[in-house]
Formats: sequence, C-alpha cells, structure tokens
Amino acid sequence: MTDSASIGSDEPVPFTIDDFAARLRRAADAAAAEGLDGLLVTPGPDLLYLTGYAPVAITERLTLLVVPVDGEPSLVVPKLERPDAEEAAGAVALRLLDWADGSDPYATAAPLLGSGRYAVSDSAWAMHLLGLQDALPRTSYAAMTAVLPMLRAIKDRDELARLAAAGAAADAAYGEILKVRFAGRSEREVAGDLAALLLRFGHSQVDFTVVGSGPNGANPHHEIGDRIIDDGDMVVLDFGGLKHGYGSDTTRTVHVGEPTDEERRVHDIVRHAQQTAFEAVRPGIACQEIDRAARAVIAEAGYGEYFIHRVGHGIGLTTHEPPYMVEGEEHLLRPGMCFSIEPGIYLPGRFGVRIEDIVTVEPDGGRRLNGTPHEMAIVE
Amino acid sequence: MTDSASIGSDEPVPFTIDDFAARLRRAADAAAAEGLDGLLVTPGPDLLYLTGYAPVAITERLTLLVVPVDGEPSLVVPKLERPDAEEAAGAVALRLLDWADGSDPYATAAPLLGSGRYAVSDSAWAMHLLGLQDALPRTSYAAMTAVLPMLRAIKDRDELARLAAAGAAADAAYGEILKVRFAGRSEREVAGDLAALLLRFGHSQVDFTVVGSGPNGANPHHEIGDRIIDDGDMVVLDFGGLKHGYGSDTTRTVHVGEPTDEERRVHDIVRHAQQTAFEAVRPGIACQEIDRAARAVIAEAGYGEYFIHRVGHGIGLTTHEPPYMVEGEEHLLRPGMCFSIEPGIYLPGRFGVRIEDIVTVEPDGGRRLNGTPHEMAIVE
Repeated sequence: MTDSASIGSDEPVPFTIDDFAARLRRAADAAAAEGLDGLLVTPGPDLLYLTGYAPVAITERLTLLVVPVDGEPSLVVPKLERPDAEEAAGAVALRLLDWADGSDPYATAAPLLGSGRYAVSDSAWAMHLLGLQDALPRTSYAAMTAVLPMLRAIKDRDELARLAAAGAAADAAYGEILKVRFAGRSEREVAGDLAALLLRFGHSQVDFTVVGSGPNGANPHHEIGDRIIDDGDMVVLDFGGLKHGYGSDTTRTVHVGEPTDEERRVHDIVRHAQQTAFEAVRPGIACQEIDRAARAVIAEAGYGEYFIHRVGHGIGLTTHEPPYMVEGEEHLLRPGMCFSIEPGIYLPGRFGVRIEDIVTVEPDGGRRLNGTPHEMAIVE
Repeated sequence: MTDSASIGSDEPVPFTIDDFAARLRRAADAAAAEGLDGLLVTPGPDLLYLTGYAPVAITERLTLLVVPVDGEPSLVVPKLERPDAEEAAGAVALRLLDWADGSDPYATAAPLLGSGRYAVSDSAWAMHLLGLQDALPRTSYAAMTAVLPMLRAIKDRDELARLAAAGAAADAAYGEILKVRFAGRSEREVAGDLAALLLRFGHSQVDFTVVGSGPNGANPHHEIGDRIIDDGDMVVLDFGGLKHGYGSDTTRTVHVGEPTDEERRVHDIVRHAQQTAFEAVRPGIACQEIDRAARAVIAEAGYGEYFIHRVGHGIGLTTHEPPYMVEGEEHLLRPGMCFSIEPGIYLPGRFGVRIEDIVTVEPDGGRRLNGTPHEMAIVE
C-alpha cells in the first residue's frame, strides 16, 4: 500500500539552471536528428519543461521560446511580462526580447527563425501559428508531438520522484475515500470528498474527480453529476491532479454492497486486462503492444466492443501527454517513460468498470506508481 | 456602492436552444459578410458561446465545430466524449460526428470543409490547424479575432445581466477587503482573503488576485508574492474571476497609512485618466480613442513612459477578449460591448497605481459595471 513517508509535503529537489540547460540541449539535438531547424515553444508544459517559466496566464499575447538547433535560444515575451520571465529558474541564461502592446509580435519573433522547418508546441494558439505563417511564408511547421513526440517522455530521476509522490498521494486519497458513505449521497458530494483528500495529501491542484455511478459509469468521460448513488451501484472513481507540478491519475471501481455475478465477472476481466498489459511493459516493446495486450483479454472474454478508448497515455507535467498506448503507436518503450494503463468495459445504460495505474518503464519491466489493491472494494 | 440584491446567488436565466441557434446564424452571416466560407471552432469560449458545450477537459483530442456560411453546422467529437456533447444545451440541434482513438480525426473533419477560407478559433491548438492544413492543402485559414474579432463582443441582455452580477460581486469583495489588516501580512495572505471573498459573493472561479505592494506594484503583471506589506506601501489590488460563467475584473490601488504627496499626485493622475477615458465612451467612437484619452492625461502629467500597457480589454465568457482598447484598433464601439478601462502608472522599484472598471456601451455613453469609489482608500 502507501508508504506514508512519501505522501508528506516535503518539498522536492528544485530543478536547476543546469537541468534546464541540459533539457534545451537535448531538445535541440533531437530536433537536429529529425532534420528540423529548431523548436518553437509557447506557454504550457513544454515551456515549463525547457525553461521553468509559466506566465501567470496564457493569453492572446505572444510568448515564444525559439530554440535553434545551433546557437542560442531566445525567449520573446510581452513587455509587461518581462519581469516575471526574468525570474524564471531556467530563463536566466536565455536571451530575452520583448514587444509592447500595439506592436507586431510576429515581427519581433521572425528574425529569430530561418526559412527552414520548425516543431511547434501542440497547444500553441492557431492565431500565433497563422501570424508566423504570414510573417514567414517560406518557413514550415510541424506539430511537436508529430515530430518530437518524446520530448518530455523520458523522465529523469527528480521527475520520477515527483510522479511517485503524486501517485502515493492519490493512493492515500483512495484509501480514505473507501471509508466514506456512498449510498444515498450524490456523485458530487463524493467527488468533493475526493478533491479535499487529494489536497490534504499534498496536491496543489485537482484536475478531475470522476465519480461515475451505475449507468453513469458506462460513459468513460462522465465526470460528476447530481445522481444519488444507490445500494447495488458500481462506482468508477477516476481522480488526479498535480503535486509539486507533476501529475497523478488513478482509477478504481468500487461497489456499493454486494455485486452480482455479472458485475464480478466484468470487473475480473478488466483486472486481468490491466495485469496482462502491465506485464507486457519492458524497454523495446512498441506502445501499441500495451494496448493490444489489454484489448486481447477483453475481446477474448467477449466484451471487445465495450472497450472504447485507448489503454493509456503518458503523464508528467500534464496528465495527458505522449507516449500514448494506442493502436498505431509504434514508438518503443524506453526506461523512464511514465504512462497510465487503464482498460475499461462500458455497458451502456448499465454500468462501467475501469482500473488504472501509472506505470514507469524500468530496465527489466514495469513498475507501478500506484499501489492500492485492484480487487473490487465494497463500500457502504 | 454595491446593490446587495445583485450579489446574491440567484441563478440567471438559462440560455436556450433558440439563443444558440441565433448566435450560430449571426456567426455564419458575419463570416459570409467577410467573404469567408465558414467558421472552425474548437473548445473554449467560442464553442461555449455558440453551442453551450464545454468538454470536461481541453485535450489533444480534436473537438471541432464546423459552421458553414450556408448549411447545417456539424460538431466533430471524440467518440468517448459524444455522450457529453449530446447533453449540451445548444448541441441538440447539431449534426454530431465522432471519431475513435487510433483513427484520423482530420479525415473525419475534412469532408465538412470546402476548399475556401475559414476563420479558426484563436486558441485552437496549432497541432489541429496543422492537421487540417495537411488534410486540406487548398483550404486557407485566418485567426478568428483577425477576421471576426467582434463575434462575441456585443453582449445580449442576459449576458449583460451576468456581467453586472459578476461586477457587483467583485465590488462587494473590495468593500470587505478594505476591512482586513494589510500591514505585517504577506501579499499571499491578502490575496487569499480576496479569493475567499470572490467565492463568498458567488464566483465559481477565481482567475486572478493580484496584490502588488510597494515596488511589486510597479510590475503590472506581478501577481502575488511573499513580500510582507509594510506601513507606507501603495498596494495594487486587481482581482476577478467567473460568476455564472461571466467575468469580473476590477482594480483599486489602496495605501497603508498616510500617502506622500507624490503618491497622491500619481494616484490622482490615474484617476483622472480613468475618468477621462470613461467619458469618451459612446457608440461610433474607435476603440483606440479610449486608449488615447487615458494616455493623453498621463502623458500631459509627465508620466507617459510609465504607462506601459493598453488601457483595456473586452470581457465576457473570458476575462481577456475583443474589443481591445489599444492604439491601432479602429473598430467602432457599439451598444452592448463590455470592456475594462484600466490606466496605470508604474514607477520601477518604487510603486504602481492602477484603477480599473468594467464599462458597457449604451446608446448615449458608457455605464460602469463597477461602482466602488475611485478615491485612494487608506487601509491599516
């Protein structure tokens, strides 16, 4: 179960200017290896990863990190955000350029780019990409995850420690939620309990607290409703957020009172699928094999059509990022990658079951960052 | 001051399917008038405005509303989010298409577009735009605010009621914050008080609680720090969030104990600039004239170089949206537009002053949606 020492609120080792410099160097090298001329990074997880800088808000004002494959990275910022940018841990070593309201930010950024091909952050605003395309019609662009999908995929030691601490905190929250009353309370109330527990165990941010009871559990993206949970309900609990900047994400499916034989059977199939996929994890295996491993178990049991999503997604500074465990993803697993394994079966109008752990790849196989039991817990 | 009836938690009139249908029609007409072939709208405020639909999370999975200038709008959604989309108030009348994990979402969307020119949501992810550009190389795209900046700018009666209620709630929070202790407490503590007050007065979300004391006030985008507020400090308080889905945003600059003559003078200049800009508001005036009106007062007083940002931004479903009150913005004010007027003077290393109200355009001039006094309040 949970190691209580790891769920404390101890501050993790801070990332240093050297960490950021090394990441910038690796990113430039990876871009060069793909035949790109550089990276264009806008606010969000890529910018946080490479510079430690996160503007107070992501607005329509252009902030752009330009990382050429050769030469010095530059950060373009709105003039009034320059003081904040100057304070970011990894921005100290960057050349800063600012632009004032009323001037053309793309004219400030354009001279930093050549006429080559650049990877651009997935979540960069279309308006900024269109602005650059207008300013530099001979430059071409590709989505970061299309050309450099693994930019942030391999976690270093300090990142893994943060992910493990986030997982342990989510596990501790699960341990406590089993003690609350479910029957007669709304999904919203139980979700509130879950959110409070994540915060109590050191999360700074709650990203989702899915409580899918009875038929609501059959919608894999149902979040929270006002449905009153009843005796006899299956309840999918899928929750996570950020602790020290890194994500947690775990799912367990519990039952209010005694389950039926069918409910037990479906839960067992999902549990078996999760375990089989986990056991397939090792360096050199293609991501899609993890999806296939889980899917084969569920299809074999006759529920293939009710498993309607990929089996997993990477996690790190965000709760959804490469590598994706999905059919067609041929990238190979490498040590340090972290992702969810979360098969499910969804019977429309009836109930759903999902079981999810975060797993990291080690030299000889997978290691779970969640440790609570997979058996169906019975709640009151 | 604050009308206590308007800060209650009464639910506003819900938007109806007819509201959404009318907005979709107006958007298509506006696109046609600009010579466009349609609109491409991704999750965020534009989608919420046009359909009432907000996915539980904005992820890498493509959700895309296609509004052709002629014909039926269609909404492309990830298969596992389809049940949520079907429940959105304005989505009932839309044709829904879904795509499953592992398939190509752009292949699903492409047949809905012609080879013409489309406006695309500013904050659409670059990866989605690049996906469409790849799938449809003969189609061209323009940023929504570049071609249809005023899509959401003119608020209808129910939207204005929500904005007024949000403003009144922010005013009530300001009234209460004047009673707390400033001297000897950190900016973070006062910011926490402000956040709690916004929630107490009916906000569902706190977007920012800037507390810029002493020299921190001279950085217009300083948010919150650990600086201990001292007797003799100027303190910029800029706070807002969402109430019933619509934004609040107001700034007052207070002083701990007696201000110096210079502090009074600078505060008076900003107050005068705010008033002058407000009095310039009326239908038919260009947005940039509002900026110029404030800037002229500050320049005249000799502080022009210390007013380093535009004077205002629109507000609605978001706290930063068109129309922008900035040099170069020649769009004309029209009744129903809502925006901030927030001039400031920032003396580096010393202190800053900003005063901000939300203002709406009425047939005969401006009406403030904030009503607290502009005089510099003295706090303890």
